[in-house]
Amino acid sequence: MKISARNVLKGKVVAVEMGAVNAEVLIEVAPGIEVASIITKAAFEKLELAVGKEAYAVLKASNVMVAVD
Amino acid sequence: MKISARNVLKGKVVAVEMGAVNAEVLIEVAPGIEVASIITKAAFEKLELAVGKEAYAVLKASNVMVAVD
Amino acid sequence: MKISARNVLKGKVVAVEMGAVNAEVLIEVAPGIEVASIITKAAFEKLELAVGKEAYAVLKASNVMVAVD
Amino acid sequence: MKISARNVLKGKVVAVEMGAVNAEVLIEVAPGIEVASIITKAAFEKLELAVGKEAYAVLKASNVMVAVD
Amino acid sequence: MKISARNVLKGKVVAVEMGAVNAEVLIEVAPGIEVASIITKAAFEKLELAVGKEAYAVLKASNVMVAVD
Amino acid sequence: MKISARNVLKGKVVAVEMGAVNAEVLIEVAPGIEVASIITKAAFEKLELAVGKEAYAVLKASNVMVAVD
Repeated sequence: MKISARNVLKGKVVAVEMGAVNAEVLIEVAPGIEVASIITKAAFEKLELAVGKEAYAVLKASNVMVAVD
Repeated sequence: MKISARNVLKGKVVAVEMGAVNAEVLIEVAPGIEVASIITKAAFEKLELAVGKEAYAVLKASNVMVAVD
Repeated sequence: MKISARNVLKGKVVAVEMGAVNAEVLIEVAPGIEVASIITKAAFEKLELAVGKEAYAVLKASNVMVAVD
Repeated sequence: MKISARNVLKGKVVAVEMGAVNAEVLIEVAPGIEVASIITKAAFEKLELAVGKEAYAVLKASNVMVAVD
Repeated sequence: MKISARNVLKGKVVAVEMGAVNAEVLIEVAPGIEVASIITKAAFEKLELAVGKEAYAVLKASNVMVAVD
Repeated sequence: MKISARNVLKGKVVAVEMGAVNAEVLIEVAPGIEVASIITKAAFEKLELAVGKEAYAVLKASNVMVAVD
């Protein structure tokens, strides 16, 4: 499946924190560069995620803000 | 200023594409890892962005989806 | 590719309106039920969209609001 | 009240799952076509939602992504 | 129509900037406090907006970030 | 830090409701005008928020919808 979201960053799940409703998933997209995602537990189970699994962080460009010091 | 968004990824602007209303900004957050952001031209000018400038890609964790092959 | 977004609605592209930067795509997910999406022209071309093509409308459940009369 | 969101899909609540903080609401917008929404419990109560009630799934077009096989 | 979005701020349109595809609408919700919204031209026409008209700025609480100095 | 988000509304935290995973924060941006934000508990702690503290409600203009009666 190809998706219109501009950013599809390949990486590996390096940490997972399960909540009552949601799960926080850390995806390492480059050495030391982690992207945190919050998804529902249902989605977590649907994708059969686990630490060590290859996964993509998917982001719409319009949801990416820019900041400067 | 500190912000509640979970992901604040430090990088460098490596490409800019100006549109009539928006600007697409590519931020390299690690060698070969680029995050694309679409912001308004007004925001682009407010931040005085340009290729080579240090910038952060800022993302709410709830806006990051996860995908697997 | 499987994605964490909760809503993946299968349908067919029934109309397209190209803008300078974006494209508005109408996807019919059931007889008479259309979902409008605005994506970038780059995404439109990446997915090789056209009227009549099968496509999915993909939505995070947290981006779906509910209203009542 | 009229709203700027492009997609206002009329349907009926067919399932509800209450969480500690949020509620997942399934709205059937056409026979067999369900849209899942996650809203806060406060919003759920404000709208007096319940299975069988008429409701609209409201989506900004810019939050609808497109995918193809 | 009542909507699940947590923030429905009543105000008045004080400025409008029409673009090729979008319109930027400034809504004054209190003396000197303006909220900027970007909507499609189609939505702008659907709501028959104009400077001086009463309007609500509608925001999901999960789309409101918090920052501190 | 300057950010591309169009709306950066200065105010004061007037109420906080802690959940298992998230926190709802009410920011008064003008007398009687409150903006509700839902952020993660981790973000709440990172920003050391508390009732009475100065804070900004930060919103992308594209996440602000407009409604009329």
